[in-house]
Formats: sequence, structure tokens, C-alpha cells
Amino acid sequence: MTRADEFRALHDDFLLLPNAWDVASAAALVRAGFPAVGTTSLGVAAGAGLRDGLGLSREATMALAARLAGLPVPVSVDVEGGFGADPGAVRELGHELAALGIAGVNIEDGRENRGLTDPAHHARLVAAMGESGLFVNARTDTHWLDTERAGTLDRVRAYVDAGADGVFVPGMIDGAEIEALVAAAGVPVNLLYQPGRLSVGTARGLGVRRVSTGSLLFRAALGAALETVEAVRDGVPPPREVPTVQQIQGL
Amino acid sequence: MTRADEFRALHDDFLLLPNAWDVASAAALVRAGFPAVGTTSLGVAAGAGLRDGLGLSREATMALAARLAGLPVPVSVDVEGGFGADPGAVRELGHELAALGIAGVNIEDGRENRGLTDPAHHARLVAAMGESGLFVNARTDTHWLDTERAGTLDRVRAYVDAGADGVFVPGMIDGAEIEALVAAAGVPVNLLYQPGRLSVGTARGLGVRRVSTGSLLFRAALGAALETVEAVRDGVPPPREVPTVQQIQGL
Repeated sequence: MTRADEFRALHDDFLLLPNAWDVASAAALVRAGFPAVGTTSLGVAAGAGLRDGLGLSREATMALAARLAGLPVPVSVDVEGGFGADPGAVRELGHELAALGIAGVNIEDGRENRGLTDPAHHARLVAAMGESGLFVNARTDTHWLDTERAGTLDRVRAYVDAGADGVFVPGMIDGAEIEALVAAAGVPVNLLYQPGRLSVGTARGLGVRRVSTGSLLFRAALGAALETVEAVRDGVPPPREVPTVQQIQGL
Repeated sequence: MTRADEFRALHDDFLLLPNAWDVASAAALVRAGFPAVGTTSLGVAAGAGLRDGLGLSREATMALAARLAGLPVPVSVDVEGGFGADPGAVRELGHELAALGIAGVNIEDGRENRGLTDPAHHARLVAAMGESGLFVNARTDTHWLDTERAGTLDRVRAYVDAGADGVFVPGMIDGAEIEALVAAAGVPVNLLYQPGRLSVGTARGLGVRRVSTGSLLFRAALGAALETVEAVRDGVPPPREVPTVQQIQGL
């Protein structure tokens, strides 16, 4: 059984997939019992001082993927839009990730500041990525970018026809829309957890097979670091217990 | 005025130096108003899947240093024990960091699982590092490793004689010991903030010129990420507000 097969099987029931941004966060999530780990392109890009969604983070993404492939659980890598408009470049990316031992990818049709790519073009990228044998989660950004929402199901069908193993519509939170998506997709549907807007339980009850956390954990981490240093500066106790040095070293 | 001079001047009064582990955390600290940023070798090592204190993180440290050198404030880099026993290697490391635009370094005499290095040897490493013109903060781990505590002042004097611009004794929290260290050092003294054990105000009142946060912020970040994902999993609201995607992208 390949890493992709192992990851695919986790979608038979339901998978809560947390997203990491470095080895420490990924290892901590494995230690906390999660059976698979994803990455957040926002976290990986910001960690390297780059802006997310512009296709600038291929090197940082591959360096992290190489390190995460050693974890004892399947790893899915967020590759933004595939780091290149050319299906050949995306095919090569998929083969590199599969060779490292990565289980799956997310590939999105949204482009920062440029809206959505043509669905036929994204379908070609999905097909090219699929040649690697990775679990390909095809993401459409109709809801995330709040544009061309009416085209969501057509895009999803095009990506599934191109071989997508799963589809991801971050920003979709409406119950009726989720039910329609699940009915139309024919493959596992992935949605994004959003505090106060879409819970894991709600999504699961509507037939969603994967919920991921996107950049939330990365943002929570950075926010907590700032809260902590402000407490240190202001002479008040830090707001929470923190893991010890020994706990971090033991990850 | 060089970056090292700019950093040195920040020690004229008192400097609270927070420690970052990636570009996002460093940029957030700059945005929060800190006039300089350090790095934490624990965070840098753990982020790359390496154990801290074994001298394994030179590559990850230099990659981060290259990115942080672009920040608008002086940056001090934690280089563990210098990533090599040889003064020539440490001299080369210092020149590389200075060429990048880094302002200072911390170099420690403790070795993970092997106790303290010979002080004369560490003094040679301090002198070699100093040839770069960087602000060299010489760290002794007598208190951190709780070994040879009685030798602390002798070590500090040897490192200052070798050219250290500042001295750092993490783990020292006793008021009388701190006063004796400040009186003996002749250069700015740096201590480690420890929640409930040594506050910024206490250290400052005793004549300490720099307090740093070590790995605390990194550990707080990782702890908050875990708290958040456990809330998501358990169907309860995440424990705190988190920065938005737009805030992260704007760093």
C-alpha cells in the first residue's frame, strides 16, 4: 500500500486534517494523534518571508516536503496553483513529491489578485498532477475569492473528470450548497473549518469527508507568540502554559 | 554606523530582545515595535526537524539569517556553540553573517549532553567570532545546565577578555548573583526571561541591559496551535482571536 493509498483510505469515513507549516508543528500534530497532516501554503510562504498565492514558494515547499516525508503518517502538501502554468511543470512537481514519499497534494484554481484560472486549464493541471499517483485534492476558489460562485459545480465536475481524487471548496459554509456539492462530486469533499461559521460536526453531518484547518493553526501560533511577548514586556504573566523545552526536543 | 553599532547602542539603556524562529515571527515582532530581533536556536532547529544544541542547524540558521537580514531592525543570531569546534570555522561563520547584514550573535559554551566546554577554548571561539565586527554575546551555560556554577564569573571574565561585547547567563535568577555578575562583567549583561522566576522589571532594576525570551515565544506558538486544533476537533470555540489572513499577508 502506497502512502497515497493509505491517505485515500482515511477518507472512507471522515478525516480532520490539520495543517502544519514546519517540522515542529507537523510532529506536534502527529504526537497529538492526528492520522495525517497537511501543510498550509500561507504558513510556509510567510515563514520564508514570501507572499502566499503568487507561486513563489516552490523551493520552501519542497524543502519542507522532504522533511515531512519522514513522518509516520501520510502527508498532503499544499502546492498553491502548482507553481507554474505549464502542465509539464506540474507533472514534474507531482513526481518529485511522490518520490519523496508524500501522499497527496492540494492544487487550487485561484490566483492571488488575478481571480480564477480557466477551468479547462486547471483540469489539465489536475490530470498532470495525477500521473504521479498522489491523492490529488482539486481546490476551487469560487467561494474563497467570492467570484463565479455559480460555476462551482461545473468546475468540480471538470476536475473530477480529469482524475481528481477529492475536491476542496474553502469558504463554502451553506448547508444546502454543501449537500449539493457532496451529491454532485462523486469523490470525497473537503471543506475548510471556519470558527463560528463551519464546524467539523456540521460538515461531517452533511457528508463531507475531510475538514482541514488551512492557515488557522499558523495564525493562532503567531498570535499567541505576540500575546506572550506583550505580556513579558508589560510585566504580566503570559496568558497560558507553554510546552517545555524538553517537550519540544522530544517531538 | 554598522548594523552591529546600531545594535550595540540599543544596550546603552535596556533592551528587551524577543526571539523569532522564522520570517513571519520576526516580522510580526518588528511590527509590534521591538527595536531588534534575536533568533532561538531551539525554534530554528525544531522547525527543521533537528535537535537543538548538537550543532546540526548551521544550514537552517544561515538560510534564516539571510532572510532576516532584510528586516529594518538589527538582528542577532543564535549560533549554538558556533557549529564547529575549530576557531577557523567560527571565524568563517562570523564573516558570513556580517556579510549578510546581521548585527550580532550569541555563542554558548554548553554542549547538549556533554556539559561545558573548556573556558579557554570558548574564549578562542569568542575571539574568532569577534573578528567579524559582529556584536558577540558570549553565553555561559553554568546555570542553564546547572553545572560548575561557581566558575561563572571566571568564565565571564575570560570571554570578556577575549573581546565579548556582552555576556549571557540563562538560568540565573538570584538577585545577589545577578548583582555580582553585573559588577564583574564590565560589558552589558543579558539574562533570560523566565515566567514566574525572572521578570523584565526585576532584571532591569538589577542593572541587566538585555533580557531575551529564548524559546518561550516559539513554545507558546506551538502550544497555541495544539490548543486550537484540539478545540476544532472537540467542537468547542478556539481559545482566542487569531490574526487574519490579511494581517499575516501584510507582515
